[in-house]
Amino acid sequence: MTKINLIGLDADDTLWHNERYYAETQAKFAGLLSHYQPEDWVRKQLLKTETRNIEHFGYGIKAFALSMIETAVELTDGRISGQDIGTLIEMARGMIDAKVELLEHVAETIPKLAASHKLALITKGDLLDQEKKVLRSGLAGYFQNVEIVSQKNSVVYARLLTRLSVLPENFLMVGNSLRSDILPVLELGGKAVYIPHEITWEHETASLPASNTTGYFFLDNFGKLPELIEGLEED
Amino acid sequence: MTKINLIGLDADDTLWHNERYYAETQAKFAGLLSHYQPEDWVRKQLLKTETRNIEHFGYGIKAFALSMIETAVELTDGRISGQDIGTLIEMARGMIDAKVELLEHVAETIPKLAASHKLALITKGDLLDQEKKVLRSGLAGYFQNVEIVSQKNSVVYARLLTRLSVLPENFLMVGNSLRSDILPVLELGGKAVYIPHEITWEHETASLPASNTTGYFFLDNFGKLPELIEGLEED
Repeated sequence: MTKINLIGLDADDTLWHNERYYAETQAKFAGLLSHYQPEDWVRKQLLKTETRNIEHFGYGIKAFALSMIETAVELTDGRISGQDIGTLIEMARGMIDAKVELLEHVAETIPKLAASHKLALITKGDLLDQEKKVLRSGLAGYFQNVEIVSQKNSVVYARLLTRLSVLPENFLMVGNSLRSDILPVLELGGKAVYIPHEITWEHETASLPASNTTGYFFLDNFGKLPELIEGLEED
Repeated sequence: MTKINLIGLDADDTLWHNERYYAETQAKFAGLLSHYQPEDWVRKQLLKTETRNIEHFGYGIKAFALSMIETAVELTDGRISGQDIGTLIEMARGMIDAKVELLEHVAETIPKLAASHKLALITKGDLLDQEKKVLRSGLAGYFQNVEIVSQKNSVVYARLLTRLSVLPENFLMVGNSLRSDILPVLELGGKAVYIPHEITWEHETASLPASNTTGYFFLDNFGKLPELIEGLEED
């Protein structure tokens, strides 16, 4: 019999919309620079800058804003206007202050899960951003722990589980990123439920585990989670 | 008899230099804009922008970089060049990648403290930045916990102490910021050692507690910490 002692939940694009705001901002950014360079090229260069900057600036809106500004300077050979730079900063502030929109089925499913299991929110990104989103989401009260980490790999998960005194086999992680939520947890011997989101940041893509991988589950809908967990614990 | 079960240590400008890098970068920034506005005025405006942006962007180098860029655009009425913006981003990257220089007496004092007490690093700022600095400092092995928080107020300390099962009266915090390290801990009934640093960010200033405030101690030198704690525990 399987016992789940802790359910870990990714936040961005698992519980609430996130990539949508990045996609919208990217579209505005490409539009802003379209009289210098074709929009597709602008997007490609932005992704390149973001990827290069991860080791320096990490994840989150501030890192994204700095990458937009840097890309803008590079793609215009420094001819980008101060006003346009100001607009980019304003766009970043808008993203940070955006309201939190829960994904479908999340609002009714989280209380169900919390009634039977300990829940931990496990997310990457800016500390302040993520804390604000948790507060605004209205879900804060359902989580025993909110863990904001700079990256999600098997070492980070192992350390977290040790601290929370949970064995990997009793841990189930739920998320939309194979690379951050699924693969490192399977590697540790934990269980992981992949619920893809319509948009996934290109940096987060990885190949799908085989459907018969031990501990790996796929759901197309957050609302099916309680049933999956119940089934698991009955086995 | 007083028993200290946990020593909390602030990081920036308590264990290692930090404001020095901000001060250097500010000086370069003011120099860069000196043909638009007097340097003093530039510095004042930067501090204003930083303070206004805290609620959106929080603390740390990325927030500082965005505030520099925003100030530069404002103070030049948008005439700042793309090249200069690129220089500002380069300056931020330089700060993030700067080496960690321990303050005087820290390298020999931390192992002494760790031999007799549990140590927790408690710091504000960007998650990734601070994690990198802890690693580079060579001190990571001495801390039982590394807590990176978005702000340091009495609620945050109370939550942390509950999680670590430490009573406020058995907690001693050490730091260079009255506002973040000293006052909120005294408010909870904990003990706090104020070790001022030559440079303190203006946002962090607050008035000194009276020297007879219960639990409040002042040291001019990190190396005196073991003796102070020993004295406390003997009383």
